[in-house]
Amino acid sequence: MPRRFRVAILGATGAVGQEFLQLFEQRQFPVGGLKLLASPRSAGKTALFGGKELKVEAVEPRSFEGIEVAFFSAGATRSKEFAPHAIASGATVIDNSSAFRMDSHVPLVVPEINAASIGADTRLVSVPNCTAIILSMAVAPLRSIGEIERIIVSTYQSASGGGAAMMQQLLDETREALSGSPQSTIHNPQSNMPPYAFNLFSHNTPINEHGFNEEEWKVMQETRKILDMPELKLNVTCIRVPILRAHSESVTIEFKGPAPSVEDVRKSFANAPGIKVIDDRERNRFPTPLDASGGDDVLVGRIRQDPSNPKAICMFIAGDQLRKGAALDAVQIAEYLIAEGRI
Amino acid sequence: MPRRFRVAILGATGAVGQEFLQLFEQRQFPVGGLKLLASPRSAGKTALFGGKELKVEAVEPRSFEGIEVAFFSAGATRSKEFAPHAIASGATVIDNSSAFRMDSHVPLVVPEINAASIGADTRLVSVPNCTAIILSMAVAPLRSIGEIERIIVSTYQSASGGGAAMMQQLLDETREALSGSPQSTIHNPQSNMPPYAFNLFSHNTPINEHGFNEEEWKVMQETRKILDMPELKLNVTCIRVPILRAHSESVTIEFKGPAPSVEDVRKSFANAPGIKVIDDRERNRFPTPLDASGGDDVLVGRIRQDPSNPKAICMFIAGDQLRKGAALDAVQIAEYLIAEGRI
Repeated sequence: MPRRFRVAILGATGAVGQEFLQLFEQRQFPVGGLKLLASPRSAGKTALFGGKELKVEAVEPRSFEGIEVAFFSAGATRSKEFAPHAIASGATVIDNSSAFRMDSHVPLVVPEINAASIGADTRLVSVPNCTAIILSMAVAPLRSIGEIERIIVSTYQSASGGGAAMMQQLLDETREALSGSPQSTIHNPQSNMPPYAFNLFSHNTPINEHGFNEEEWKVMQETRKILDMPELKLNVTCIRVPILRAHSESVTIEFKGPAPSVEDVRKSFANAPGIKVIDDRERNRFPTPLDASGGDDVLVGRIRQDPSNPKAICMFIAGDQLRKGAALDAVQIAEYLIAEGRI
Repeated sequence: MPRRFRVAILGATGAVGQEFLQLFEQRQFPVGGLKLLASPRSAGKTALFGGKELKVEAVEPRSFEGIEVAFFSAGATRSKEFAPHAIASGATVIDNSSAFRMDSHVPLVVPEINAASIGADTRLVSVPNCTAIILSMAVAPLRSIGEIERIIVSTYQSASGGGAAMMQQLLDETREALSGSPQSTIHNPQSNMPPYAFNLFSHNTPINEHGFNEEEWKVMQETRKILDMPELKLNVTCIRVPILRAHSESVTIEFKGPAPSVEDVRKSFANAPGIKVIDDRERNRFPTPLDASGGDDVLVGRIRQDPSNPKAICMFIAGDQLRKGAALDAVQIAEYLIAEGRI
């Protein structure tokens, strides 16, 4: 009988936390005991796993005693506070927050791309930003057919990136808008978030001195680290659209030499795990966020030569933000560590 | 008392047609008689103008007798059929369809940019594609501060580009999705349009041998003609998003020399008619389609240097597809012709 592991989820009541529970069942992850943790505010709630109702406990430093794998998805502040306790308790931490991603001692992992960056003694692995994961998945296979110099990306990001609360806000505001009011009255004018129903907006995270918001900066930095291409040139624009749970990205990729042919690009994706090409020009079928929602694959289509640059190609991609963009990537990291005998 | 003109609208019952009626009143366009025309299918409907109810007539070759200005907005096929009759009847035709846009004898006009391309004897003027108008408006002022070489655009296009029917479909499908079904049952699986509620998709027009859809091809060709830059390099990706009536565009502009400073870009927009800069990094306020909806200006923001290319800048723009993207541009063309004494 295969070994089973004592698992904790910190942030169990969030959108990503809920996805972990589904993935454990769908992938028959070897859970030998499950502890659900959250902030004191969410403690006392319950969640179903394996037909049993589990109570969510308030996280505290001692919560991780006896835990072997801890999935963190409760924001950077909680990760910074509790990761040291979990590691000291003997757990391996797989962290979905931004807390340690750019720490040079912490591997930032998309298993299909850079599982090998996880050292033998690693007890803390970071899961990249969702948009960076989806982008990296679709870019990595192209490195076998050309030397990539520059990537230009405009995103179409879903509400799920802002958690269950933002998904609910999109639904509530849309319902309100449809009831007659053209601009939602639910919308809080004090927030820095524009109205969301039938609207889109520049990702509402703080802007740095270069004019880029935090999300864009993360995608640029993290993509370089995931792909181990510190000199990669990136230009990213992050836009939030009124979609529930999958992110899409319009991507132009410039190579140092002449661009590979569309046929070679398709071939490089055909052998890439976690990638599905949907690129039917005849029937006008290309990736949509609805196609990607709930699935594991990053969808790639609209593959074509860039008419403005003979060294470039364009494509349009979509991936489920909550799955490959977050929980699935984390579970795949744990599966890798188990397969390698490191947990 | 100023002269008044006998006006016809072909396509009076459509989304753009309705916008003409509003614009005539708002801008006190010198209407001295108004004839509303449409396909036989829409004939008999009524519309309000100047407090009076006008009946929509079925268009026929003789409909334009006595008309001085005819606004066409009923698709390319009807424009091709009826423009010759309208011109023969003595009318000047301002055509919102794609029928004559790339005809080298027909000016393709955004008045702020190239009104001068209208010859003294011109009786037919084309209004460009909505996405091309909004893009050109935001690009034209930059020609005074640098030589533009290449433009990379990803669009976020609203339902109104598909007319009143597509706007209604978005509302209906969204209402249905909110009522419980995750994927609309209203949606017709026979159509080549993916589900629209909380979804987005590559512009569903036929794809050419280069892998570009008709909309993208129009934007690339027409932008070159509007800006009178036949060598301009363009890379356009057109995406339909679940927004009602304004188009947004994420734009990267590469210059032949070093990129102008953000300050110089802002200055060039400050003096540009029809442009409003919304670019408040501190308060995270940038253009949204909801801000643009119902307004005349093209909104510009997220102005920043491209970190991946010292010769490039980025920006995010939004404009009302039905107004500056269609009816307003046409009315401005008529106003120009009247001011010049050509009608």
